[in-house]
Order: sequence, then C-alpha cells, then structure tokens
Amino acid sequence: MREAVPARKGAAHDSVSDLVDDLLAGNKRAAAKLISLIEDDEPEATDALARIFPHTGRAHVVGFTGPPGVGKSSLINRLVRKYRSRDRKVGVVAVDPTSPYTGGAVLGDRIRMADTGVDPGVFIRSMATRGHAGGLALATFDAVRVLDALGMDIVFVETVGAGQSEVEIATRAHTTVVVEMPMTGDAVQTMKAGILEIGDVYVVNKADLGNEDVLVANLKFQLTARDGWIPSVIRTAATEGRGIDELADALDRHAAYLDQTGFRAKREVARARLEILENAQRLLSRRVANRSRMGRAFDALAEDVAARRLDPHAAARKLLWPTRPREK
Amino acid sequence: MREAVPARKGAAHDSVSDLVDDLLAGNKRAAAKLISLIEDDEPEATDALARIFPHTGRAHVVGFTGPPGVGKSSLINRLVRKYRSRDRKVGVVAVDPTSPYTGGAVLGDRIRMADTGVDPGVFIRSMATRGHAGGLALATFDAVRVLDALGMDIVFVETVGAGQSEVEIATRAHTTVVVEMPMTGDAVQTMKAGILEIGDVYVVNKADLGNEDVLVANLKFQLTARDGWIPSVIRTAATEGRGIDELADALDRHAAYLDQTGFRAKREVARARLEILENAQRLLSRRVANRSRMGRAFDALAEDVAARRLDPHAAARKLLWPTRPREK
Repeated sequence: MREAVPARKGAAHDSVSDLVDDLLAGNKRAAAKLISLIEDDEPEATDALARIFPHTGRAHVVGFTGPPGVGKSSLINRLVRKYRSRDRKVGVVAVDPTSPYTGGAVLGDRIRMADTGVDPGVFIRSMATRGHAGGLALATFDAVRVLDALGMDIVFVETVGAGQSEVEIATRAHTTVVVEMPMTGDAVQTMKAGILEIGDVYVVNKADLGNEDVLVANLKFQLTARDGWIPSVIRTAATEGRGIDELADALDRHAAYLDQTGFRAKREVARARLEILENAQRLLSRRVANRSRMGRAFDALAEDVAARRLDPHAAARKLLWPTRPREK
Repeated sequence: MREAVPARKGAAHDSVSDLVDDLLAGNKRAAAKLISLIEDDEPEATDALARIFPHTGRAHVVGFTGPPGVGKSSLINRLVRKYRSRDRKVGVVAVDPTSPYTGGAVLGDRIRMADTGVDPGVFIRSMATRGHAGGLALATFDAVRVLDALGMDIVFVETVGAGQSEVEIATRAHTTVVVEMPMTGDAVQTMKAGILEIGDVYVVNKADLGNEDVLVANLKFQLTARDGWIPSVIRTAATEGRGIDELADALDRHAAYLDQTGFRAKREVARARLEILENAQRLLSRRVANRSRMGRAFDALAEDVAARRLDPHAAARKLLWPTRPREK
C-alpha cells in the first residue's frame, strides 16, 4: 500500500494545482474532475498531467479486448471484488467511443460496479472521447495516469470490442487480456486475424455453456510466446464467479514476469514513443489554430497548397522545420 | 477536354519520374501503380505526389456517404455512364477500410463497373488503406489527385457507410452527396445527427419502394443552406436508372455555384489545412523511426518519458522545437 498525503478537507477546487494536490491525497472527486478535463481535451488537462506525471508509474495496467457480448464487464466486475479482497486498490477506465452502455446484462454490471463507489479503494469511470484531438488511446492512458496518481495499485482498461482501435488500446497496457467464448452448436470457432499475437492472458469465458475444451485446446495449440512469456489460458464463468481467482493469479504472475525480465520498461518505452507522437500531433493542431506566428504561417501555407504553389507534403515540412534545410 | 501529353509507349516503369510522365500522358496502368504506392504508404508516393501536384486541381471531386445498403454503388455506376454520355472523363475511388465488398447487389455493381475498364475515359479503383500512417482520408485524396492528374474531369469518392470517418472523407470533397432511402412499413424515419448539415446534394434513392414523399418533405423542411447553397433533394431509383439525369444536373449546378461564388477556393483551403497537418504527422512518424539525428533524439525522449523524468507533452514540445524556448 502507498503512503497517503493528508487531504485538504473542504477546500474549493480553484485551480489545477489544487485539483492535483487533492488527487494525490486520494480524493476521488478530484480524479473525476481531471478525467473530465481530459475527456473534453481542455488545455488545463495538459498542465495537470505534467504535474501528476512524476507521481505515476506505480499502477499495473491491464487492457481487455474481445468481441462485444463476451462478458468483459462481468469479468472486470468480479476482478475488482477479487482484488479488493486481496487489499489492492483498483481503478477501471471503460473506453466508450460512441455512447453509454445499453443492454440488460452489461448495464446491470455497470450498476453493480457503481455500488462500489463508497469504497475509497475502487474508482470506475466510463470515458466518451469521440473527436479527441490526440486520439482515443492517448486520452484513455491520460485517464489511467490520473488513477495511477490517485493511488490505485491496478487499473483495468475495458474496451467495447475487438476492432482495430480497441486492440490498439488494449495492447498499450502492461498486460493485455483477450477474452473469447466458446461457440455453441455447430458453429465453427474462428479467431480474428492477429488476435493470437497480442494477448498475454487469454480468457475463455462462459465456460458454463460447454464446448470450451475445443477453444482452450485450439488456443494452447496456436499461441506463441510474447516477450518470452507463453500466454496463460484461463477458463472462467464470470456470472458465477468461477475462475476469477485463477485469472487474478495469472495477471499477477505476468506482472511479476515483466518486472523480473525488464520487459515492463520495454513496454513503457514503446507506449512513450506513441504518446510523444500523439502529443506532438495535438500540439501542432492547437498551435496552428491560434493567432500565433505559427498560426499565421500555417494559414499562408494552406493558401499556397490550395493554389497549387506548394504540395501538402512540402508544406508540412515547412511547418515543422521553417528554417532548416531539407533533411533526407 | 484537356490536352494529352504524348504517351511513352512500351517504356518500362523504371522510376517515379517515368510513372508520373506516363500518368500525365493518360496511362491508366501508371495511375494504378501510383495508387498502389499510396495504399502501401511507400516513400516514393511522396515524390510522385509532389511531381503531379502542379497538374492537379482541375477535377471536380464528389464525395458520397450514406448507410450501407442504400445503393451508393448503384448510383455511382449509373452516374459514371451518364457522365460518359456527356463526354466527361470519370474517376471513382471506393474507400474500403477493411475488406473487399461482399454481398450480391454491391458485388454485382462492382463487376458491372469493371466492365467499363476498356474505356480510357473511366478509371475505377477500390482502396484498402487500413493502417496508413497519414490516415485514411489523406490516402484517399492522394489517390483522387492521381486521377485528377490522369485527366479525369470528375472524380467520385465512395465510402462504405455513414460513420464518423466516412462522413469526414465525404465532406473533404468539393460536393458532398448524402444518400438516404425511404423506410417501408411503420418504421419511423430518423436521420443520423449531423447528417443534415454536411450535404450539398441529398439523394432519396430506392424511390420505387414508395414512401419517399415523407422523406423528401422531411429533408426539404429541415435542410439549411451550406455556404449559401440550399441543398438539392433528388429522387432516384438507381437500379432502374431513374433520376440520374437530375442528379448529374444537380452536381453540375453545385460545381458551377462553387466556381461563381469562390467557395471552391474556400473548400480547397480547408482541405489543405487538414492535409498539411496529416502530412506533418506522417513526416514525424517516419523521421523518428529512422537512424537520423531526430530518430536518436526521439529515442532519448522516449527513455526519459518511460523513466518519468519528462512528461509526454513536454517531450513532444522538445521533439517539435528542440532549441526554441517554450511558446505559450
């Protein structure tokens, strides 16, 4: 467990500096406000993230991907309780690119998860970040950083599906969990291309439906090592709470493996590369939109391109390196 | 009609320079090769696009969006024939972010469209550009530029749906066409939010199903002017060829309107702004990936971020402006 900074009780959230102080003291309301700033792509979020950054890097981040309806929310709900019973603080960021969850089972889970809101060791947040200038993945991991600074020991990132962007988000975590379920009846079990290369832990959920042996055998046959780690395959029945202990153990084993081998640092560097480029993109978009010297230069470049005096690639080079000679 | 540069018959495509010469001479095979380079995000594509850029800007570009199954392919197929009968050269770029078309009617159209391949005044190309470093929209309009330089008078950009990225692509064209169809039975016709603001021409396709009057009336009641232009609403039955003359006339009227009012230049500038930023993003991604001075600086920044010595936003600022003091 981490040291807690004393909370400034009853203080008004006047500034980003106060919000950050409250966050570091474990104040969940400050965390919620900061994540809203990130969601809305507010410039204050940049300041806040710079301040909290030195206080991050302690949480273990687990990304979940898998087709809709496979039971990711139920699994995470069970895992939250399991980790609380092991006295670990747990954060959840549910990435929702379009709209709030609907539909019986998932909504039910969401409500049950919200019940843990009185527990200071749990923080759950759904993020709607459509149109974020730095991209969905950047906003998601900025929010993860807030939960990290809040003092959470483990943070789950839940995506809604297994599409390109969901997989990209899940694989930026320290541990990537791929959730599948057995097909019933005569349907042939097919895995999405590429899904066998991305997971550190594979979960065969809804094992109570039967038919799971074929899927488990298929996975074990096809999976190959990632960073020297042979992916675990865990059977669960999330709605009944079966297999959750084994899943939590597998997550902890993988976290320990990353620490022992140095692969945690390697994954941090890989994520840093992506985040620096995404921040650069956002910084450029913001800078050219205002009435700065760079904004005026950009306006002139756009006029030149529209008039076919300059091609867009050459214009981009001038925007990035206005005075430097061309570098090959 | 445009002047044709004499073709270099039988010449091998040894270099980008040769490919561009052949393209400007009206060689469709050169166009296909250049679009493949764009699709694969090859650095040669950048050189080629810089060379052809001064020869572009003459084609009128029309983007189509609308839900899957609404008949966009059939409409475009009919429009291609219509414009050929008016002695106009026509290009089509079908944007396909995931996989080739499947399904009876659409595939049927695609095959019929391919039949026009012997006509030098038609060029049709499906683009699969998943994972393009500059984004799907950038790759699409780079391909449009190839067809423009090939000498096409009008280029149709066909998207597969009406999601965020499809709408973004369609609205980068000079003229944006939104295709809808009447609902049959008791279903209530609802329009996606925002769809009423983006179109210059609205098509109510499958008018032969009946019930189209309600949709047409709804559209006319709700549509407002865009750049001073009140959007046209056209009824078509693409499979029977009804309404195609009226649609082509509406497209030509809008093209003339853009020329007369200066809004064509305004739209070119808006697209240039987006394309410059996207090119800058791609340029950065490429530059940091190689063993240049900038690549080494980037590696060091990523190490600093992973070690929490520097936050990703500050690292992005150092990447973009290594020597400049911080500008607010």
